[in-house]
Amino acid sequence: MTVTVGDIGEFGLIGRIAQEAFTAPDEALGFQDDAALWRQGDGWLIATTDALVEDVDFRLNTFSWEDIGWKALAANLSDIAAMGGVPRGAFVTLCLPAGIEAADVLAFYKGMAPLAQEAQTPILGGDLSSSEQIVVSITVLGEVESRERVLRRATARVGDQIAVTGVLGNAAAGLALLEGGGNENQDYAARYIAAQRRPIPRLREGQALLEAGVRCGMDISDGLAADLQKLCTASGVRAEIILERIPTDPDLPLVFGDSHRLHAMSGGEDFELLFVAPPDTMQRAQDHLREKALEQVTVIGTIVAGQRGAVTVRDERGNVVPLSHEGFDHFGAAGIPLAGA
Amino acid sequence: MTVTVGDIGEFGLIGRIAQEAFTAPDEALGFQDDAALWRQGDGWLIATTDALVEDVDFRLNTFSWEDIGWKALAANLSDIAAMGGVPRGAFVTLCLPAGIEAADVLAFYKGMAPLAQEAQTPILGGDLSSSEQIVVSITVLGEVESRERVLRRATARVGDQIAVTGVLGNAAAGLALLEGGGNENQDYAARYIAAQRRPIPRLREGQALLEAGVRCGMDISDGLAADLQKLCTASGVRAEIILERIPTDPDLPLVFGDSHRLHAMSGGEDFELLFVAPPDTMQRAQDHLREKALEQVTVIGTIVAGQRGAVTVRDERGNVVPLSHEGFDHFGAAGIPLAGA
Repeated sequence: MTVTVGDIGEFGLIGRIAQEAFTAPDEALGFQDDAALWRQGDGWLIATTDALVEDVDFRLNTFSWEDIGWKALAANLSDIAAMGGVPRGAFVTLCLPAGIEAADVLAFYKGMAPLAQEAQTPILGGDLSSSEQIVVSITVLGEVESRERVLRRATARVGDQIAVTGVLGNAAAGLALLEGGGNENQDYAARYIAAQRRPIPRLREGQALLEAGVRCGMDISDGLAADLQKLCTASGVRAEIILERIPTDPDLPLVFGDSHRLHAMSGGEDFELLFVAPPDTMQRAQDHLREKALEQVTVIGTIVAGQRGAVTVRDERGNVVPLSHEGFDHFGAAGIPLAGA
Repeated sequence: MTVTVGDIGEFGLIGRIAQEAFTAPDEALGFQDDAALWRQGDGWLIATTDALVEDVDFRLNTFSWEDIGWKALAANLSDIAAMGGVPRGAFVTLCLPAGIEAADVLAFYKGMAPLAQEAQTPILGGDLSSSEQIVVSITVLGEVESRERVLRRATARVGDQIAVTGVLGNAAAGLALLEGGGNENQDYAARYIAAQRRPIPRLREGQALLEAGVRCGMDISDGLAADLQKLCTASGVRAEIILERIPTDPDLPLVFGDSHRLHAMSGGEDFELLFVAPPDTMQRAQDHLREKALEQVTVIGTIVAGQRGAVTVRDERGNVVPLSHEGFDHFGAAGIPLAGA
């Protein structure tokens, strides 16, 4: 019997690869956290790499080349934000069919430019290659102040509060509108489609969380439920969240109806930050981000003892919400258990 | 009229992208040299990225997964060697169909491990994604001592000698044997096929060239003729090389017949170093690499004034050799002019 990549799934494979590959001393966190971290001369560098594949991560009939460039860079910058890092430069590899118009390739880089400039992340180099399917692979390098002053996944403790920045579900709503051909002309539709095509990495929020003393966090790329499960697995803890506390855009029910918060919880690509801190630090973080006029912070639950990696969702009355939604695994593996009570 | 990527070609596009993208101050050489170079804290970092695509750079019926892992890492390490750098870590992105066996993915990382260990280049992180075609994209980070102490393409001067490490054409012969189904059982066949599947990046040679005072060089990935043309274009000079001086394996005529040196000149993927230096420095480099028991150095020609980027090939009697071979462009563009006299 053979076991395929699809059977094991993206997250199962990563663990096995870490055993097989020639890896670094334990200072390299690249197999567990959003970015790798290592000492370089007198500083600490972080780096992350993320690929976007045509018809998996975007479609040419709903994404412009500018959109693809923006989103590919944004997804990588978000992994730097997830550690609280400062990005310093990007390497961009683009594989595409020879029949694509040259102007489209330039549009791809043009779409990336305003975000690269805003984040002060120059494109330092890259590679072009031919392929049947478009594949964009970006590596972003950044800096952090020290090994300790960083957002990590393994540092959640029982009693900590769980919070997110911004609102969740907009990117999923945008995807639903693009794929389902919904009411794209409505006001909210433009907002949701922009969230899907041109997400904003929360770089300043990540740095501000570090300033407030937060040391546990990640970005929400695969969906809140799936990503919280990863954080809890890394920390050896369990999470309880309250469904109604998940912050959503007021118009989200217009796309997802009554189950809009379930969609907000399972939908990926919002690229908001998910983080965990003791109550006093959490209060400081909320105040600090408000003072800096950054994204709002919403507390959605608590870290508790129990089955490692389990995420329990309750409604406001305390009843466990049965979940069928799962986070995004690139190989479609059903590897993410959402525990009941 | 639309202009496709195939019309402009890989190297034409890179120049236009550098104008379009948000790029760094001039210290970032990633668009011109083999690797980007920038100051980081108290040191100088270099980084390079290179992708391998199924059925473009390898085929699953002639490459094992171990071979793919080795070659993808080797191609990137070679770009670090091309600058004379010391590699420090790698990021590996693998896009592949969900139906691939998990054991194959582990074999890919296993194939990379001995080379990563030899080069002291741990795998610091990466990404897995699903795609129809296998795409491997690797970014390698490394260090150099200073901005000046590095091999670059733009520093060739009239009167300099042109040299290469090792022998050329073995990887092309290996590819011909694999693709043409030649005499794979001959002694030489195993050697050539290994050169194609498991090339050795010339890291110690690149560092030794710097020690000897060489400051101009690159690796030969697209073929000597094409790569020398790039070096001459970057330096604003012309090159004259003598066909018979191109170092080749004694058995190469068994694969390529009388035109074996033309194949050695046009065939890519040898990952030897091509470098240029004044005669006294060249002598020092030859002696230094011999003392260190590294690859042999062979002088094959001279840098001369004239049409920027032109490469003239003569036979030993001084006659110009007419050339029809061209270097490898990922989009098949015929963008590489090989000038006559």
